Parts: sequence; C-alpha cells; structure tokens
Amino acid sequence: MVQSRTHTCNQLRIEDVGNKVTIVGWYDNMRKVSKNLGFLILRDFYGVTQVVVETEEMMAKLSGINNESTLSITGVVRERSSKNAQLATGEIEVVPEDILVLGKCIYNELPFEVNRSKEADEAVRLKYRYLDLRNPAVKEKIVLRSKIAAELRRRMIEHDFLEITTPILTCSSPEGARDYLVPSRNHPGKFYALPQAPQQFKQLLMTSGFDRYFQIAPCFRDEDARADRSPGEFYQLDMEMAFATQEDVFGVIEDVLPPIFAKYGKYKTASGAPFPRISYRDAMEKYGSDKPDLRIDLTLQNATECMADCGFGPFEGQNVQAIVVDNFTPTRKVIDKICADVEVQSGRKAYWFKVDEKGELTGGISKFLQDRKDKVIAALGLKNGDFVGLCAGKKDDAQKTAGVLRKFLGNASEAHRKKECYEFCWIVDFPMYEIGEESGELEFCHNPFSMPQGGMDALLNKDPLDIYAYQYDLVCNGVELSSGAVRNHDPEIMVKAFQIVGLGEEAVKAKFPAMYHAFCYGAPPHAGIAPGVDRMVMLIAGEESIREIIPFPMNKTAQDVMMGAPSEVDEKQLRDVHIKIVLPEENQ
Amino acid sequence: MVQSRTHTCNQLRIEDVGNKVTIVGWYDNMRKVSKNLGFLILRDFYGVTQVVVETEEMMAKLSGINNESTLSITGVVRERSSKNAQLATGEIEVVPEDILVLGKCIYNELPFEVNRSKEADEAVRLKYRYLDLRNPAVKEKIVLRSKIAAELRRRMIEHDFLEITTPILTCSSPEGARDYLVPSRNHPGKFYALPQAPQQFKQLLMTSGFDRYFQIAPCFRDEDARADRSPGEFYQLDMEMAFATQEDVFGVIEDVLPPIFAKYGKYKTASGAPFPRISYRDAMEKYGSDKPDLRIDLTLQNATECMADCGFGPFEGQNVQAIVVDNFTPTRKVIDKICADVEVQSGRKAYWFKVDEKGELTGGISKFLQDRKDKVIAALGLKNGDFVGLCAGKKDDAQKTAGVLRKFLGNASEAHRKKECYEFCWIVDFPMYEIGEESGELEFCHNPFSMPQGGMDALLNKDPLDIYAYQYDLVCNGVELSSGAVRNHDPEIMVKAFQIVGLGEEAVKAKFPAMYHAFCYGAPPHAGIAPGVDRMVMLIAGEESIREIIPFPMNKTAQDVMMGAPSEVDEKQLRDVHIKIVLPEENQ
Repeated sequence: MVQSRTHTCNQLRIEDVGNKVTIVGWYDNMRKVSKNLGFLILRDFYGVTQVVVETEEMMAKLSGINNESTLSITGVVRERSSKNAQLATGEIEVVPEDILVLGKCIYNELPFEVNRSKEADEAVRLKYRYLDLRNPAVKEKIVLRSKIAAELRRRMIEHDFLEITTPILTCSSPEGARDYLVPSRNHPGKFYALPQAPQQFKQLLMTSGFDRYFQIAPCFRDEDARADRSPGEFYQLDMEMAFATQEDVFGVIEDVLPPIFAKYGKYKTASGAPFPRISYRDAMEKYGSDKPDLRIDLTLQNATECMADCGFGPFEGQNVQAIVVDNFTPTRKVIDKICADVEVQSGRKAYWFKVDEKGELTGGISKFLQDRKDKVIAALGLKNGDFVGLCAGKKDDAQKTAGVLRKFLGNASEAHRKKECYEFCWIVDFPMYEIGEESGELEFCHNPFSMPQGGMDALLNKDPLDIYAYQYDLVCNGVELSSGAVRNHDPEIMVKAFQIVGLGEEAVKAKFPAMYHAFCYGAPPHAGIAPGVDRMVMLIAGEESIREIIPFPMNKTAQDVMMGAPSEVDEKQLRDVHIKIVLPEENQ
Repeated sequence: MVQSRTHTCNQLRIEDVGNKVTIVGWYDNMRKVSKNLGFLILRDFYGVTQVVVETEEMMAKLSGINNESTLSITGVVRERSSKNAQLATGEIEVVPEDILVLGKCIYNELPFEVNRSKEADEAVRLKYRYLDLRNPAVKEKIVLRSKIAAELRRRMIEHDFLEITTPILTCSSPEGARDYLVPSRNHPGKFYALPQAPQQFKQLLMTSGFDRYFQIAPCFRDEDARADRSPGEFYQLDMEMAFATQEDVFGVIEDVLPPIFAKYGKYKTASGAPFPRISYRDAMEKYGSDKPDLRIDLTLQNATECMADCGFGPFEGQNVQAIVVDNFTPTRKVIDKICADVEVQSGRKAYWFKVDEKGELTGGISKFLQDRKDKVIAALGLKNGDFVGLCAGKKDDAQKTAGVLRKFLGNASEAHRKKECYEFCWIVDFPMYEIGEESGELEFCHNPFSMPQGGMDALLNKDPLDIYAYQYDLVCNGVELSSGAVRNHDPEIMVKAFQIVGLGEEAVKAKFPAMYHAFCYGAPPHAGIAPGVDRMVMLIAGEESIREIIPFPMNKTAQDVMMGAPSEVDEKQLRDVHIKIVLPEENQ
C-alpha cells in the first residue's frame, strides 16, 4: 500500500531537514500564491504540517481536488524561511515529490467550515458529526474524555478495584426513572430493560464475595434531555466496597479524583484529602444548598429575628436569610440583574440594602430598617461598605432562595470567588425520615435502602426524625457528582426501617427481590458511590453542553440524526418479538 | 463502625504472631472438636484464615449462626501447632476475643455447598449465582476476566489507541444477525436497536479524523445460545486504525495479545510475532479448515490420483484427501471412535489403513489398495508403521471432512500435538468473489465492504474470481477470534465492486447510509479487527462453557433466572412507548 506514513503531521522538526518523508492526512486548506506556488496545510489527528507546492506538476496533482480529501504526500523536509512559532512543525515545510489522493471529498462546498464548526447550527453539526469532529477544538474534548476514563480506570485498579461488567439486558425496575424496554423473542410478552444503573448488580457482587468493584458503567434512563443530561445513555464511575465504612469510600474518592481534575482540568488545582464534610442541615443553613459551590466564600446568616416586624411586607412572619458581602460595590444595574436572575431561577424574590461609608443603611429595603439600624448592624456584624442580600419565606424556601442568591453574588464579586480551582465537599448526615409535605406522614427522606446511623438500635430507640442515614453526596464546584451510601445489608434492619413508615416486608421484597433474597444468605456490610462520568468530564473540560463531550451524541429529542436513530423497522422484526405499534391518536 | 478489618483473610503470617487483629469474612465452615473447641474457617475475597474457638463464651457467640453468615473476628494471632503448607495463612491461627455477626445467613440448608457449586445443577447455580460466585474456583475466572480486560486496555493505550465509547442506543442494521429493538417514547412507531458491533461507528470515527481507536465494546445479537456464545450480549476488543495496512493491524495484535495469553493462560507460552500468515486456499488445502489448530502438525495430502479407480465405492470419481500419521498406533477401538466422531461432526465418513512393520498395507480399506501399493506408498511418502486417514467427496467436502479428521487424529496422537501453548495464525487472501452454490452467479464471498487487493485496477482488469480481498481472520488453537479487514473507504471502488455482482449504487447506500455519506467527504484508508473478549477469556481460562467466564450470565434460553429477566411490565410502560403485545397463538 502506497500511503504508509513515515511521520505524523505533528512530528517533523528542524532536525528532519533534508530527509525524505511521507505524511498523510486531510487537505485542510491551501493558500495559492500563484499558478505554480501554493502553501497547503495537511492535517491529521496529531497536528498540521505545511506543504509547499512549487511546481506545475505537483499543482496539477491537486487540480480539482477538494478540501477535506485525504492525501499522501512524499517529499523532502526543508527549513522554512518564515517560521511559525505557534506551531510544533512551524520551523519546517515539506516540498512534495509525489502527491496521492487517498480519499476524495466529492463536495466543493461543505455544510460548514471544519475549523469553525462550533459556530454552525447544532442540528447540522450533529448530522455531519464526522466533519464536526475533524475540528481540533471539538476533537480535543473527546480525546480528553478518553484520557479521563483511562486514568479513572488506572487509579481505581491501583486501589485494588476490579472492573466487572454487569448485564445490560436486565429487568425493569419498579422505581426511579422510566426504563428502556427490549421485547424478548424467546419469551413472548416479556421484556428486558436496560439498567438505569448497575446498583443491584454491584450489591449482588458484594454478596457474592467480591471486595472492591468498579465499572465505568453505561446507564440508561428514558428521560428528557437537559443541559447536563443526554437523553438515553450516560456513564458513571460505579464503585462498591465490601466491609467498608463511609470513610473508606471517601478515602478512595479523595485519592482518585482530585489528581485527575488537576491534571486534565480547565483549572489546575483541586481539593486535597480530606474534603470538607458538611452535614445536610449545616449545608442548608450555611449555603442554602445541598450542593454548595465552595469556591464562593459567602455564607447565609439567619436574619429572622433582627428583621422581625420591620414593616417590610414580604418579611412579615417569615424566616429571613441574609448574605453579607464585603468588598463588593455593584452598580444598581448589576444588583437588579442579580435579583432578577434569582427570581427566574428560584421563583422567589431577593432584596438588598447597603451600609454606606458613613455607616448608614441605604438603598433597597433600607428604609424599613432605619429604626433598628444598630440592632441589624450588630446581629449581622456589618461594617461600613458591606452589601447585604436578603431572602424570605418559610425556612426551607428562604434558605434555598438565599442559596441561589449566594451563587449570583459570588459570581459577581471577584473577592469572594476563587475561580481557578475545583472545590470538592461531602454532604453527609442526610435525615433518614421526614414528615411528607403532602401526606403529613412519616416518609423516607431519600433512599430507603441506606443504612440508618446507629442501625437497629437507632430504629428501635430514637425518634425517627432524629435518625440520620449513612448517605452522602459528592459535590464539586456546586455540581452534584453523585449520591452514595452505606447500604442496608441486613434484612431485619430493612424490614424494621420500612415498618416505621408503615410498610411491610412485602414492600421491601417487591422493590429488589433478587437483592433481598441474596442478603438472606449472609451479606457483608458494604458502601459505594457512582460519580457521573459525563458531569466530571464537563467540569474538567469546562464545557456547558453535554453534547460537546460525547463522541456521537443524540439531540435533545433523543435522535441520532447522523445515523437516523430511532428508525422504522420491518413488520417481521416486530412479529419476531411479539409486539405491534399502537400510534397515539395525533399520529394516526 | 465496628467491623473495620486490620487484615484480609489472606494476609496473616508467622511474623504477625502475638498481634491483635480484626478479620472479616464469611463463615466458611467449622470443625467442632468438642463443646468448647472448634476450628472455624473465615473466608473473604482474598483467602481463608483459621480461627480457633476455644472458650465457652466464644462458642456461645456462634451458637445458632449458620455457615455463610458474615463475621467480624477480633483476636490474637498464634502460631499453629500443626501447620498447613498448602495455605498462605497456614502457619497461624487467630484466637478470638470477640466475634460479631455482621450479616446473618438465615438458612441452615443451602441450595448447594459453596465450595462444590460446580457440581450443582446449572439452573440452580444461575439462580443462586451470588452463592456460586463465593466458590473460589468460580470467582477466580471472573477475576481473571477482569484482569485480562484491564491488561488489554493497558496494552492498547500503550500503543497510542484511544478508547472511545460509541452509542448503545442506535439503529437497526439491514443485515447480519437479529437486532434487539428498543421502542422510542418520543418518536412513536420508531425503534432504537442495540448495536451488533460498533462497526459503523468506528469507521465513522476514522472518517472523523481519529487515528487509533479501540473499545472493549458491548455487542448485542438476538441469537440463540451456543457453547461459546451467550445469548444477548458479548464483548469484543474492537479496534480500527487510520491510514493503516493489513500488516499494521497484524503488528498491533501480535504485540498486544500473546503476552496476555502467556501471562494469564492455562498454557504459559504463546506464538511470538509474526504469526504465520496462511492464505485461505492454502489453509483449506493443508489443514482442511480456515481455522486450523496449529498445535497439531498433521497436514492433508491430495490422494485423489493415487486412489483413482481403486474400486472402493466411496472414492469413485471423488476427490480424496489423506492424512498420514507416524508414531501413532491406535487400537481398533480408538480408530472406530475417531471415524464415528468425524461422521457426527462433519456428516461424512472417514476411512483408514496402516502400513505395517513389514511395509504391507493392512486394515481399513487396505484390500482395495493392494494392486497399487507401491504407487500409494510413493505418492503419500509412506513409511513402515504409518497410519493413513482418508476422506472423499467433492474437493471442498473432502477437505473439510479431512480437516475434522485431522483434529481428531491430532488430539489422539501425543506426538503430533503440542498441548501446552497458544498457536496463533492469520488466515489471509480470502477471495473477493465466488460463484454462488445456489445461484450459480457471481457473488461476494465474504464482506462486500472490504477493500479488494489491487483496488480499482483489479476490479477493472482482473477476472473477479482471481481477486482477493484485504480480509483476514485471527485464529488461535483452532478457534476463530475475529475477522478483520482493510475497509473499502472509497465510494467509487465500492460502487464498482457492487456493479460486478450486478448491484447498483443504491444497494451500497442502502446498507450503511451514514457511512457511505461520510466517505464522500474524504475518508482515510483504514483497517481493523475485533477479537471476541469472551472467546479469548475462554481460551485463556481453559473453560469450555462461556457461562463460567461471565459474572451474571443468562441461561441458554436468554433468561437471567436470578434477576427474573425478561419480565412482564406494566400496561403503562407499553403505552408510553407506543407498543402492545401480540402473543403467538400457542401462548394465547
């Protein structure tokens, strides 16, 4: 075969001058200087190299050849007269002795210019993803993803975790998101489902005697797309440890993740171990969020008492949360924008006032506070020049709104936000039970299958509302990467935990029969977590759209417009699996 | 949490004597010597440790506790009086000071004894896979699989391959095996399909500018089970290289695979690079198979001429293939068994005769050869003591039957089979076209999308039956691990290749529209292969059943009896995805 390359397009250096080489790649572009002189850029996966076409013969070989065709160019390396320091190969050029077209691009016009594909319409980019990916700026995110996955694997294996692949054709799960169904051919009327997560399998692996399991696991949820969620499939770094505590899981994650974030990240530093552990209640009180962005150093203060009966209507009888920001002198326009953004995101209003340089309260709702100025200053510890943001409502609502306000204030005030880093934390001590807002009854707060702190003893002897679960969230820069838990591996404790909310053993069994039965044969205590790979890659890459970090993403309505999926299928295929289409009325 | 271990059950040594330790694991068994003395074996993922229970108090803690419960045992390490050299921890025992039950096994009787699970009925093993996997002999194959996958990844990455995950929800493919369908919720009446292989995606990646791609890729085919094929899902080491030749692919595989086979394999040696390259025609002529087991050094000889008109009915007018075996003195019973086995496997008879110590032809069909004895001896190069196996039929049939006979003869004759090694080879030069047996017309011989050797020039100027494809099979010990090819990346050559068998451009496009369109935008020459991971693990593990090397296998009728998949689903789930069940008549 003639096209064998001697070098990639990112390899030739000044030392190679005088050598005869063959390079191969895509015809990126050519600057034609004259009929017999042109500078052609050849691009491959690794980089670009300039080729100087300076004979009629060589120019003729390129006649009628469109950009984006693939070429093999054999020639001699020459030192460039005008060097390009921006380019790894910028000191040399190749003078061709032979040019061979390996694969023609038959189109003179492309749907978009490859190197500017990010400016093209997303639908067109997705349809011509194979052209979009030729753009080095697009490609590099996919390369990054691959490197992150490889490094995650390498580090998990270093920690003695075994990667075990669990079934993809499995069964429908009675809770959680909507399943993707796969009709069975051998078993008419029955269906496989694609796993929403390998949760049951990993717990079964623990019960099977495996000690440290992980998997970069494909997961499937038939949910609508969001900015950070692709419809269809996504990947998680699924892990589980036998005979392990919450701290054991934390130790592994704290050792595995930060070096990868720091090495490949947009920001070059990441929290070291141990990450801060913040109880769910503290997180809500201090940050107004169970996924606080710790790059922002602002915190909430309870201003309910000092604002009580101040006469400002929206505070009347409400919990009031304040955020005091020093070194922050926003214009009125900036303040209004922040308040508007908070309302859009939280559905609730934000308020404000300032302490001026003379110590007077001014602006915003300050007029309601003049009669209690000293009390407010003392309660919130205000100094001259401080800006105070405020939110009100029922305690939960006031906190959550203030959590949103905190984010906007932090993003607006340079002094309160470390931008260039990854700040991790653990949210711990989630309550096991709560009084349901609608039902008014005792309910599970989060996952009923997490181990209650204190085990059976706590269930028997404590007020259920005082029981915490061994459940935790991993948060980075305000993004929740995963929930995890010490699992409840003991059927007796499980049954008791369900009894407390008025459910019987049957309810336990019905959810995960295989797991429940397996636990009756002697299970180890075990704990795990499953950070989302897509979200981690987005954070590391600094990308806002999930479609930038997936090689062949579906669009927002769950179509692969390049492949044409989903598509119509033959009647016979449907017959084989014993189903028939029932179109909704509007489609008939 | 109380159960934190200080050591695994495979860790304590004579140096630890006197130390206080905590070990955790499964209550494997206990040998009770007296009311107050028992030897308990604690088992975890890593190994076993003996615990001597020698007080009434400790014995009481185990009272009523069933085998397979999980325990935490804290105690002091003591030197054993009777050591067990077979066991890593055989020099010590632990004298418990505290025993804690972490997870009760509530059953006194198990479906099978864990350490003898391989003797249990397969259906029961699969249902209680979590007990089956506790058997170290079962577990170790899954551990092996995980290590092989990790090592494959490591070595591919060392060769600068990027692992890129391709979509699992994609579209139905017009050829190949039966697809698994997934009804779409957003697009009524349309279906995703699970990929039979990432073939199109990897070729699209090449066209997207990626250079060296690999993936340990889940593949899905709705086919019935075989001994070496699980129904549903399987994995392949999928790879593709841009601007690459057949030899480039061979070079990578020859460097990546053999060390893994030699390191983890049942046999400790594997072929080095380069593997023998055997043309398809040579393989059929020499070995009677396109997946020859090269551990057997026997070859076929064409005996048609020397057997012509010998008067033995089955040879009349047929092609006759002979296999000469020296150093082989089978009993009559062994010979009969071999001939019977050949007939079962090939559907055709095998024949034989021997050359005795005096140079006479004896046994089998020898009476038909007495008049041509010297001619036969000369033609087949026979020596005294040689055994000769024979098959007859049309050339293809005679060769294939002889290929089967070769295997049985090789397996029966120590002298002709190297047992303890992995012998790899490449089968190359597959014909591009053949005359279809049924149609009598020119047809594609194998994959129409492989590049014809000689490219467009060959298609234009050669007799189609003389054209070879750049297509190859990787074979190890008689097992085909994969087919691969240099792909036809040139739409013009593709159209021409289809024209030769009377098909138009539309036929090309209809098969793989996305790929065909992509190639029109400038594709690189590319080549790849995709060795089956399951088959490789079976070979390395020396396992005959594929279910032994899959963590949670389906049974032969594609059910996961542990999880209960496939299962019935709610009407609402079906409505959501716009389908309805149509039971076959016998099920109604």
